[in-house]
Formats: sequence, structure tokens, C-alpha cells
Amino acid sequence: MADGAAGAGLNGRSPPLETVRAPPADGPAMTDAESLAARVADGELRLHELEEHADAETAAAARRAVVEAETGVELSAVAEHAFAAESATANIENLVGAAQLPMGVAGPVPVHGEAAEGEYYLPLATTEGALVASVNRGLGTITESGGATARVVESRMTRAPVFRTDGVETSVAVADWARENLDALAEAAEATTSHGELLDVEPHVVGDNVFLRFAYDTKDAMGMNMATIATEAACEVVEAETDAELVALSGNLCTDKKPAAINAVTGRGRTVAADVEIPRELVEDRLHTTPEAIAEVNTRKNHVGSAKAGSLGFNAQAANVVAAMFLATGQDAAQVVEGSNAITTAEAREDGLYLSVTLASLEVGTVGGGTKLATQSEALDLLGVRGGGDPPGANADALAELIAVGALAGECSLLAAMASRHLASAHEQLGR
Amino acid sequence: MADGAAGAGLNGRSPPLETVRAPPADGPAMTDAESLAARVADGELRLHELEEHADAETAAAARRAVVEAETGVELSAVAEHAFAAESATANIENLVGAAQLPMGVAGPVPVHGEAAEGEYYLPLATTEGALVASVNRGLGTITESGGATARVVESRMTRAPVFRTDGVETSVAVADWARENLDALAEAAEATTSHGELLDVEPHVVGDNVFLRFAYDTKDAMGMNMATIATEAACEVVEAETDAELVALSGNLCTDKKPAAINAVTGRGRTVAADVEIPRELVEDRLHTTPEAIAEVNTRKNHVGSAKAGSLGFNAQAANVVAAMFLATGQDAAQVVEGSNAITTAEAREDGLYLSVTLASLEVGTVGGGTKLATQSEALDLLGVRGGGDPPGANADALAELIAVGALAGECSLLAAMASRHLASAHEQLGR
Amino acid sequence: MADGAAGAGLNGRSPPLETVRAPPADGPAMTDAESLAARVADGELRLHELEEHADAETAAAARRAVVEAETGVELSAVAEHAFAAESATANIENLVGAAQLPMGVAGPVPVHGEAAEGEYYLPLATTEGALVASVNRGLGTITESGGATARVVESRMTRAPVFRTDGVETSVAVADWARENLDALAEAAEATTSHGELLDVEPHVVGDNVFLRFAYDTKDAMGMNMATIATEAACEVVEAETDAELVALSGNLCTDKKPAAINAVTGRGRTVAADVEIPRELVEDRLHTTPEAIAEVNTRKNHVGSAKAGSLGFNAQAANVVAAMFLATGQDAAQVVEGSNAITTAEAREDGLYLSVTLASLEVGTVGGGTKLATQSEALDLLGVRGGGDPPGANADALAELIAVGALAGECSLLAAMASRHLASAHEQLGR
Amino acid sequence: MADGAAGAGLNGRSPPLETVRAPPADGPAMTDAESLAARVADGELRLHELEEHADAETAAAARRAVVEAETGVELSAVAEHAFAAESATANIENLVGAAQLPMGVAGPVPVHGEAAEGEYYLPLATTEGALVASVNRGLGTITESGGATARVVESRMTRAPVFRTDGVETSVAVADWARENLDALAEAAEATTSHGELLDVEPHVVGDNVFLRFAYDTKDAMGMNMATIATEAACEVVEAETDAELVALSGNLCTDKKPAAINAVTGRGRTVAADVEIPRELVEDRLHTTPEAIAEVNTRKNHVGSAKAGSLGFNAQAANVVAAMFLATGQDAAQVVEGSNAITTAEAREDGLYLSVTLASLEVGTVGGGTKLATQSEALDLLGVRGGGDPPGANADALAELIAVGALAGECSLLAAMASRHLASAHEQLGR
Repeated sequence: MADGAAGAGLNGRSPPLETVRAPPADGPAMTDAESLAARVADGELRLHELEEHADAETAAAARRAVVEAETGVELSAVAEHAFAAESATANIENLVGAAQLPMGVAGPVPVHGEAAEGEYYLPLATTEGALVASVNRGLGTITESGGATARVVESRMTRAPVFRTDGVETSVAVADWARENLDALAEAAEATTSHGELLDVEPHVVGDNVFLRFAYDTKDAMGMNMATIATEAACEVVEAETDAELVALSGNLCTDKKPAAINAVTGRGRTVAADVEIPRELVEDRLHTTPEAIAEVNTRKNHVGSAKAGSLGFNAQAANVVAAMFLATGQDAAQVVEGSNAITTAEAREDGLYLSVTLASLEVGTVGGGTKLATQSEALDLLGVRGGGDPPGANADALAELIAVGALAGECSLLAAMASRHLASAHEQLGR
Repeated sequence: MADGAAGAGLNGRSPPLETVRAPPADGPAMTDAESLAARVADGELRLHELEEHADAETAAAARRAVVEAETGVELSAVAEHAFAAESATANIENLVGAAQLPMGVAGPVPVHGEAAEGEYYLPLATTEGALVASVNRGLGTITESGGATARVVESRMTRAPVFRTDGVETSVAVADWARENLDALAEAAEATTSHGELLDVEPHVVGDNVFLRFAYDTKDAMGMNMATIATEAACEVVEAETDAELVALSGNLCTDKKPAAINAVTGRGRTVAADVEIPRELVEDRLHTTPEAIAEVNTRKNHVGSAKAGSLGFNAQAANVVAAMFLATGQDAAQVVEGSNAITTAEAREDGLYLSVTLASLEVGTVGGGTKLATQSEALDLLGVRGGGDPPGANADALAELIAVGALAGECSLLAAMASRHLASAHEQLGR
Repeated sequence: MADGAAGAGLNGRSPPLETVRAPPADGPAMTDAESLAARVADGELRLHELEEHADAETAAAARRAVVEAETGVELSAVAEHAFAAESATANIENLVGAAQLPMGVAGPVPVHGEAAEGEYYLPLATTEGALVASVNRGLGTITESGGATARVVESRMTRAPVFRTDGVETSVAVADWARENLDALAEAAEATTSHGELLDVEPHVVGDNVFLRFAYDTKDAMGMNMATIATEAACEVVEAETDAELVALSGNLCTDKKPAAINAVTGRGRTVAADVEIPRELVEDRLHTTPEAIAEVNTRKNHVGSAKAGSLGFNAQAANVVAAMFLATGQDAAQVVEGSNAITTAEAREDGLYLSVTLASLEVGTVGGGTKLATQSEALDLLGVRGGGDPPGANADALAELIAVGALAGECSLLAAMASRHLASAHEQLGR
Repeated sequence: MADGAAGAGLNGRSPPLETVRAPPADGPAMTDAESLAARVADGELRLHELEEHADAETAAAARRAVVEAETGVELSAVAEHAFAAESATANIENLVGAAQLPMGVAGPVPVHGEAAEGEYYLPLATTEGALVASVNRGLGTITESGGATARVVESRMTRAPVFRTDGVETSVAVADWARENLDALAEAAEATTSHGELLDVEPHVVGDNVFLRFAYDTKDAMGMNMATIATEAACEVVEAETDAELVALSGNLCTDKKPAAINAVTGRGRTVAADVEIPRELVEDRLHTTPEAIAEVNTRKNHVGSAKAGSLGFNAQAANVVAAMFLATGQDAAQVVEGSNAITTAEAREDGLYLSVTLASLEVGTVGGGTKLATQSEALDLLGVRGGGDPPGANADALAELIAVGALAGECSLLAAMASRHLASAHEQLGR
């Protein structure tokens, strides 16, 4: 394993002057963290074993000490975390501290959702200058238009294990078995969870591979863990009752954290849409453009440009808003990938501009994951959606609707900016 | 605009009991923040104008006070940020504080890159339990195999404006003009930047639309802003010299923050690959499986499963590592989308397992964006890649290589775990 | 309209010397065709109105005469058609004759399908040299391996109209209505057809668009017309019962004759798979390579190469076989597009090579379309699948299984050829 | 091998009553074909060896006799081919006769192309009722609008071999070598062809795979064979000069006959566009709709619908026209797949409707392939594009422009029909 004193040192730099080693016996008493760090340096403990020997806070301090000593880099900002180390044990291993992203708010905006109804400030954590301002401007326009409508169209978290068979004939038999035994699969799957509900199992055959795409209603949880555990139980039934052998609990047909048409087409997590009709005067006076010009930009950029790019995202910047609201509210940042499967439509109607954004696969939760962490739970509180909803699923639905409204604002603002040609100058001013 | 005291209140909840209003004249003196908040509440100031009346820290405090008063939610954790508010002005507007994500480290691991050479601890910021442990295990295997090789294959940041013409004949003329006048475009573009270099302009015609895909070497910057500004200048030349009219500075053929085949096929930002050959004994003893079993999982899951899903990502969890390292090092979280365009290959060779991951479009920088923020710059320091490299571009290259190695570790660990069937149980233990 | 004598003439050539005009009154009697042609030349009749004035054969002759006169090109080969002009009236308008493609046979091969069981010669119509030879070699290998297994996995022809609503809220209401009123939609749809059966209606919302994807069992018909007519009837119910307004009977979510992930993922027409296990000795002696080498080619070319290409087709040449068998048997040539959505898998097993091909969206029929034409119905007879099957659907199922076996042979042959490196030389010899 | 007299017989039917066997010595003299057929039946000759023992015509007759005897099916229509059997030897093996498709003509239409200039009748071979009528109506509208403009945007046929390396480091070295040694590759490649010209070699690295995408100007040839042979020669240089080993001459990154984003994005064969501006009165009087209504259908169906379907084809029925003109003119039917990568745009301009279609990857030739066959060469003559063009490439360019105009007509007609809502009834009348 690595040794800070050996060879060219870490990162190809000269070795740091000081390393953490046990001081001479007559030296000053070491803190617990220092002493643990010394034991790691001496090869007595491994970096990931520290939590077995100290509380989470001390273990993190010790880990920082080890890394600082080996690299010569001071982690003083990283060390300043607002959450208790203990509270993050379900979220991270080998903790050294926190990454801090600036959080801003945009709004307030009136939202007419099914789960989200009222006025909302949207929290956004980002390092991209101009983004919060852009969303804020969009929300301002939406607010003056009377607010945005939003609806969750569908809600289903999926997990798709892949099984091996001896060939096509068996694969088809397994697929048929799965279609006919949904009840048995549901029983096994739902025994592992108090909230989850198996909605559907969709078989796909490719030669001697069978993929079973399990879809769950996971209520207020984003649901990947729940779906994984439930599916594992169902897989045991499949293996017991058919000639299929499980190869991987996720066969990439789920599809989690990869850009995939299956999500854009059939949805994953929440499929959610938001729209607004902006009066013509407002488009002209506030956005300094026309409904027709915005519709044209949307066609040439979001439709034709994305078509030519072989894209699954027909929008201007949905991922920006999804990412910023995901980070603020404790969602899984890697699922921004699927969150970008969004289609924006814009049409010039007689009275003004109709604008909509539909996110096919927005995976959100208000329980589990990063939602309990200190800053994240405050952001969820800001939206009034922390924890389990009433009825179950209502909070995650509301969060999805609010992110859709945020995305709508981002589209409104950016399309309008382009229609009046000042994207780059906005960046020059705000983005640096 | 919103008023905390009116109607159903924010978020559909009862209005908070106290709102921020100017106290009676004889009351205790208000702090600056309180007084600013009161002026917002009175409609005298708008939320985004606070920085015009106070320093960044005070403005953020005032903004928190407004939002807290209107929503009844306390933002005490959000308020505890390790970076100076002032330092974040290029990264955010309407600042209220920070989102804090747990950061862990994995490694160290020997990396044999062209830009990154030596042993490295990889910083990962995530809220997904089990992720850092998974990467750490993968890095452990890689380390025992002698380290990973990594190479940047190509480096080019793109921006593709869309122009309107009167029809196909003009479109083709504009495309031809662009092909023949690369020098003029380069001159205009490069006049706006001290570092950027225009590599290429690729014209695409779709009816009366012309897209010009500008590709730049942006050195150590991720480069979107640089590319946007430079392209805007070049567009002026196009408009002056041809019959094309600019419609949008980004025509979605760039493609930024959308899942798009153009990025997966032709690359964007860094195209970077990493690989390792793991001795057979190590696969058996440490990973408790065989090269053949891992290759089979890779084929059935990452290749066949992704193929069947209509995916652009043929990997197990590249986005997890990309997201976690992006967040730790100040990259743009929304670009995790393109970061997931990765292909993993695994083959059983005589002596063991060959494993590779190639990320087609990894957009990274070590200057600009979120890289200067307090925790992010410490994480970059940990990797020895903060700021401009020597030669220019070397630091961003190194960062790309290190993320690729992290992704490789994630693939190694997850494929091996699946090959030995314990994904769900690992989640049960660590993930909650 | 065009006039052969005017200007630069047709095709930019000098005008032909003779045009068809009424001869002087005392000239020789004109044939019916000549006289009709003269009336067209005189502007009295239009080219597409000829069938109103003569039988199909004469009308075609007259049309040829007109075109020949205007262009100076003799259509003598085109005129020699083996089918009766009258018999083609459901297949073409403005008939002038036939395009003739060489037809070859490959086989015979033993097929173990569910609908196709026995030995078969496969008819292939193509102009690509080396193709029939390639399929024939593949079938030879399959035959020596004991034949191929084939199965139809699913059968569903789809049509997806798009409706306009006033916004997201209504769109969701329409989607919900459709989910809850499948019976009413089925009643309306099935009233238009004696064979078709509505299996499912899948709603998709995008802003103020609602797409309803109707899926039918169309038995032995390919089914596009049946599905179109049935869906039109169902659309009237949707319009009567909801606030949706039909915009287009096909909203491209069907998806017909476009490369689309929705077909590759969820299937269209027949999803059909075929496989074979080829003994190791046979691979070595007959194909001059090894199972391992073929598996490697399949991975690098069909999986990794297609992945990198952003492809929906993970095969070597499935479209070649699909096209050639489609043309021979009267299928719709434009649906070769969907027929190419195929995944080939190859694995080295202990005893030899396992090879499979799965076509996600093979749209075939044995009634309707071009199946009644003279040469096409002979080719269907050759396969024993002409006309309606017993039970209904069995003939089209069998045809799908046989095409899958043909595709399997093509994959076998080409992968083996590549594994032993003689693709180009084969082309040099046979392809010209 | 198969034996018509054994077991359940071919196609699972009862064995035919008579099989072809040598008659008793004193029987009537056999024709050459009968005698050859008898030798095949006796196992003395194999079906594909007949051309070694007789002229092409006799061999085909013998082959028919064998197949007829074994299956009991009479191939009398198939036997009636207008081309000489001898003339098809480069196009087919195991010839039994011809598949005959009805051919119709549409037009004439004025075309303002760069290579095609004048009035043209378009030949279409299809079995889909209503198609020729639809194109003919579209061409009528285009004609009244003054004709269509068309342009070839780019022309490049590609072939992309895949090489194996020992890992990422070598892969990158090979890619770099290829970039730097274009001249050597061109020399080797161009030595194999009198017409072809190597334009570019684009390297793509995926782990231990290197794909080199060779792009050629193949003039009037579609060019796959030329490109394959030239690339094979270049591959020898790559293998000699680098550490890469050729695995497959086509690595699926070409991409031939598979739906692939790489073709839609970067083009293959001809990228060609056509457009027309249709006066508002004409839209109203002739098409019974409005520019606005057509633009709306195009947006909702061709853009939003295709987007939601994860499609690479953003058009209504381009593949229909491509297939029908491909079949008429001797193109490769399997390449209809790439031909469907087309984007249609429609916009309501002040004076009327602007309509365009851009086909990204139309692979056509006027020499080689099926172009010399009897009916196909007449159809090419009809367009004035048979054989090599002057300058070389001009004929294939013209053919591409004409197919684009045909596709434009198909889009015009179908969009207009939908805008005035009579798709299904048109099918009812004409399609059966």
C-alpha cells in the first residue's frame, strides 16, 4: 500500500516534510485522532477500519490526519462540516469531511400541482454562475403569468436483473412463466418491504439472456435500494421455479445512471410535466421577445438540434436545474443522468406563449438517501416535503412537481435569452 | 410577489407566526441583515438585489432571514458555510448558504497516466452509501495489480450555434463557407481568449438550419464559458460574411448536459480511458470469482443489457464515480450526464482479467467553475491538480485520468460483486 | 405540368426526337394504349387517370408509352412483368411494369420453431453478390449442427396517434382516461376488423401532447392497415369522451419505418429469436476458426463497435437477410429499417459455439401487402406459409422464425469469415 | 443434408409425390437442366455447384427443378425473369429466378439540384398501395410551387475496421499513429482502386479496441466494396507499422445496415437535402389545409413523437420513398436502414409553407451493385443517371438529389393528408 515517505511521493510530488508517526514516548500526549492516524501510518490499521476504533467524528479526524500527512495537503475547509459525522454513516465510507456547494434560492413561485400547491422558494445548489439568476428570472415570468401547473404522470422505480438460460427456447419459457406468475413474484418482493408495491414485471429475451424489468411504487423513497432488495427476493423464486440462473441483479435494463432510451420512452422514477401559458404582453415587455421567436428557438435548438445530435434530451438546460435541486435536497447526483431525459415544447398561441417541459425519468425521494443530512433536510423543509408524505408518495410527488417547475423556469429563461440573443453576455457578466 | 402572511402561505402550510418586519422605532437596534430583510419584506428591495446594499455575507444572512420568516423554516445548517460568501459570487446568485455533502477518500492507488503519475487518494463526495467502499475495494485490487494505466485520448470542448437560412441552397453555401474560412473563424474566436484554441469547425445542415460545431482546446478550463464567448465572436463573422442568421448560440449539437450520441461517438471535453490487468489469483482470492465470470457479467449486463435498453452507457456505475469526484473537485454536476457515456470492456486473458473503461465525454477543469471554492480546491490539491497545469492542460488531463481510474475501480468492484452475487446484501449492510 | 417537348427536356437532356401524339387521321389505326398515350400527351388525360379508361394492362402500356416518348428511354425490360397488372392494383398506382431482382435459395436447413418445424429452403431476393452464398454457408453449418431453434417471443403491431390538449393537466386526464377505458377503445377498434385484437393502449404525455400507443394482435397480417383503421375508430371515441383532439393518426411513436429505440426496446410486429449450438469440431473444421475467436469478433464488432456507434443494431448483417427475404416474400421493404434492430450474441461454451440472434421488431405478414403477387406467393409457398395460418397467426409466426434462422445463418457465416479474415477477398471474388 | 423424400418432408408438409431422379436408361432424353437436377438429387452435385457444370440459365432451371421436386411447389412466375441469368452472376448465387415488384412512376417534377437539373419522372418499385399516389400528389404540389431545390451536402462512404491491442496505452499510440500517417494509409488504400479517394481516417479508442473509420469519395459507386478492399490494404499497413492486430474489417462503426447515430450525426454515403416553398393559396386550395396546420403536425409527430420514441428518424415516411426508389434503381435494399435517418422541417412563413427533408446517410450508386440489371438500368436511364457521371460522382449525386425530392414529396403529401385528417381513409380506398 501507499507510503507517503517512499519514492516520488503521492501525486508525483516531493514527499511532505512531516508525516504522522508515533512521537517519542516522552513527547506530548497525542489526541485520539492523532494516535489512530499514527497506527494507520504504522500499518497497524487500515484507513477504512477507523470507525471500528473510534466514534465517527474522531475517525474522520484521524483519516484527515493520515491523508494530510501523506500528501502534505491541509483539509481545513473539508473538515468544517455542518452535519454530525455519525449522521452520515449511511451515506459515506472513509469520511474526511464535506464538500460544500453554494446554495441559493429562486422564487417564490405559485405552483398548481397535484401534490404541490402553493407558493415555493426553490433551493438550488450549484457552482455554475448565472444559473440561479436564470431560474429566478424564469420563475418571475411564471409568477406574473399566474404560476405553473405540474403533474406527476407516472411513478415507477425499476430494477431489471439478467438471467442466463441454455437458449432461446428456455428464455421464452422463463419469460412466459414470469408473465403468468406476477403474483408469486409480488409476494416474494413485497415481503421485503413495508412500503414498496410491485406494479409490473416486463420480460425481455435476448438469445440466452432473460431480463425481467420489475417496476415498483416506492412511495416517498427514490427506491433503488428497496427495489434492489425486493427484486433479489423475487429472483430467488425465478431461480427456484424456472431454468434461469441469475447473473446480475441489475442487468442494465433498469436503467440506472446511464443515458438510456428505455427510461426516456417508458419512464423511471417519476414522469412529471409542468407548463405555463405566458401572456403575449409579458413575453414582449419582460422577456423582450415574442412567442413566435421563442417557439422558433425551441424548434431549431431543442428539437432539430437535439434530433441531429442523436439526443434523448430535447431541452435547453433541464439538467442544470435537476442537478442543482438534487444537490440541495439530498438526491443522488448520478441520477441527474436520467433527469436530463426531458422534452421541452413551445408554441405561439393566440394569447401568448405555451411552454412545457416533461421529464421522463426523474428519480426523487424525500426519505432515505441523502435526505436526512443537515443541509439537505433544511432544503426539503423549505419545500415542505421532508420525510414521508400523506398519503405516502405525496412528498416525493411534490418534489418532482417542484423540480419540473424549476426546469420550466430554466427553459423559459434560457430560450427567452436566446431569442433576444444575450446568452454569452450574461455569462460574461455573471459567469465570469 | 409572494407574501408570507397572505393566503394559504408558502408550500401550502399555515403562515409562519413571525415575519420579519421593521420593529417599532424604540425597539432594539436591528443588525444590518435584519434591516435588509425587513426592507425586502416591505417590498422595498427584491431578493436578488441584496448584494447591491451589503457585503455578500450580510446579504446572504438577510436572504436567509427573509426566507426563514416567510416559510417558518430555520436554515441553520445551510448557514454554516466554510467558504467566504464573497468567494462564491461567480458561482451563485441569491446565496443563502451551502449544501454540504459528505466527502470520503479512496485509495491510495498507483496511477500510470500521461499527466497523472504516482499514488493518489481519490476524494469522493456522495450521499450514496456503499459507493466509497466500492471504489476503495476496486482501487485495492488495482493497487495489488500494480496500478492502473490511464490516457486522455482526445480533448476538445464544443459549442454549436444554430443559424437560420432561407433554404437548403444557402445552408450548403454557409457550410461550405465555414469549411473554407476556418482561419477567419479562428481569428475571431481566439481574440476573445488567452488560452483557448479553435481546433475545428464542423458544419451540419438540416434544411434551413446550419449548425456549426466549434471545437476548442481549452487547456485546464472545462471551457464552456470560454467556448461560448469565443463562438459568439466567430458567429459575428459568419453573420457578416454569409446569409446565415444566428438563432441560438447553442443549437444543442454541442451537446451540453443532455444525453446525446454525438458526444458518445465523437467525444466532448476529455475522451479518457483507463485499464488494468488483474492477475488470475487476485481475482480468485480477493474478488472471490474468476476472470471468466466477470467477463460474462460484463457481456450480459453492460453490453447486452445496455444494447437492449437503447443506452449510450455500457458500464455498471461510471456515473457514480464521475458524480462523486465532480462534486468533490468543483466540476459542473449537470455534466455528469455526458460523463456517463462510458464503455466498459472485460476479457478473460490467460493470465487474468483485462478490464477497461473509456469515458467518451468527460468535461473537467482545474481552473474556473467551482474549482476555487474552499473545499473543492482542497480536494484538487489532494490530487495535485489545482489551478493551471504545466504545460497548460496538464492538470485537467490528470484530473480526467484520475476520474477514469476511479471509474475503473467502481466497475471492477461492482462487476466482481455481481459475479459473486452480493450486490443487494452489500446495500442492506451499508446503504441503510 | 411537364411537357417532353419543352425547354431543356426531361432529366436535363435534349428532348427526345419523337413524342407520342395523335397521328394524322389517315394514319394506321392506333392501339388502345397508343391512343390513350396520345390523349395524355394532348393534356386530355392525366397519367394517373389511365386506369379509369382502360384495363390495367393497357393503362400500364399507355403509361409506358407516355414516359418513353417524353424521356426517349425504352422500358422494355420493365414491361415484362410476370404478374397480371390487374393483380397489382392494391399494391401500386401509376403502374409501368416491374422491377426484377434476382432470387436465389439457400438451404435446406432443419428448423425447430414453434410455428416452423421441418426442413426449409430460404428464398432470398437481392442484388448484393456474396449474400446468398454467405447465408447458404451459414445454413450448412447450422444443418450439420442439427438445425436451429427459433421462437416468436411476442407479437404486437402498434399504431400511436398524437392528440393535442390545452396543457399538462388535461393531458394527464386523457392518459388516465385511456388507461381506464381500454374496453371502450377495444370495442371501437375491433369493430373495424374481423381478425385484429387490441392488446393494449399505452399513453405517453409530453406537455400538451398525448400519444396513445395501440398494440394489436394482427394474426397473419403484417397489420399496419388493420391497426390504422382500427385506431382511427378508437380515436373517435377518445375525441368524443375527452378533451383531446386528434392531430395525426400516426404520431411517430408507433414507430413505423424509422429507426427508433421504442421498437428495439419494447418490440413491434414479431419479436423473434433463433439460436444454434455449433460443435467445436465443426467450428474448427468447417469454419476454420474457434468458438473463442468468433465470440471475440462478436464482442469487439457487434457489441463494442455498435455501442460506440450509438447503434440500435448489435449484429453483423441481419438487415441483409431481412431485406432479401422481405423482397422475396412480399413484405414491406421500408420495414427493413425496424428489422435491423437485432442483437447477436456469441459465446464459447465447453462443447462449442453458442450463437443467437434476436430481432426485436420484425414486421411480417403472409396475407395482404405484396404477398399475393405472382413471384412472392411462390416464395411463400416454398416456405409453406402462404395465406392465413392455422391457427391464425401461425403462418406469420413461421415466417418470422424462418427469417430469424436466415439471419442467424448470415451472422454465423460473416462472423466466422471475419474470424478467419477473408471478408474482403470474398467480396473480391463474388461481389465483383 | 435435406432429402425431399425423407421424414416429414420439407416445411413440415407431406413429401411431394414426385422427386427428380434419373429416369431409367431407356426413358426419354432429359434436358440438361433435368439431368443436372437429377445429379443434385442423387447427391452427386451440390446446389451451389451447378454453375460449374452449365451456363447460368440452365443452372438456374436445374436449381428450380430440384427445389420444385423437393418441395412440390411450382416456381413458374419466379422463372420468368427479364434479365439474363448470366448478367446476374455478380449479384446473386444459387439463382432460381426473379422477385418481381410492381413499378410505378410519379411526376414529372422540376428539380433544381446541383447535379440534377430539369424535369423528372421518379420510378418507384413497391408493394405498398397508396405510396406512388402519395408521392405523385406531393410532386404535383411541388411542381405547382415551381419545383424543388436539392443539394448533396457531403459525400463519404465509410468502413471502420476494429483492431485489438494489449491495452489503452497502445490503443492511443495506434490512434496517434493513424492521425499522423494519413498519407501512408491513403497510398495503400488508393492503390486498390482507380476511382476511390481516401478523405479521412478517424480513430476511436475503446479500451483495447481501436476503430479506424476510413472515409472515401467513391464517386458514382455506392462504394462499400471499393471501401472494403481499399481499407483491407490500409489495414495491412496498420498491422505492419503498429502493435494493432486486425480483428474485423468492419467493426460496426462504419455503420453499414444498422440504425446508428454515427450515420445520422456524421453522415454516410450522401448527405442530401431538398426543400420547397409552397405558396399559401396552394396549401389551402390543393392540400386543403394551412401552412400552420402542417407545421403543427410536423412538430407534434415528426419532432415530439420521434423524440419521445428515441428515434433517429424525424420524418413521416422517408423510408417508403427511399425503399421504392432503391428497388427501382438497383440500390442495396438493406441500406434503406440508413436511408431512414432523415429530418423533416416545416415552418409557416408569411407567404406559405417551407418544407425540407434532409437525409443524413443515403448510400447510392449508379455503377456496380444492382444497377446493371435489366429493369434497374432502365429506371436509371429514366432519371438520366445510369453509369459513371461527368464529372465522376455526378450521376450518384443526381440520384441522391432525386431521391431527396421524392422523399420531400412523400413528406408533403402525408403531412398534408394528416393535417386534413384522411390518412386511414386513403388507405382504405387504395391500400385494400
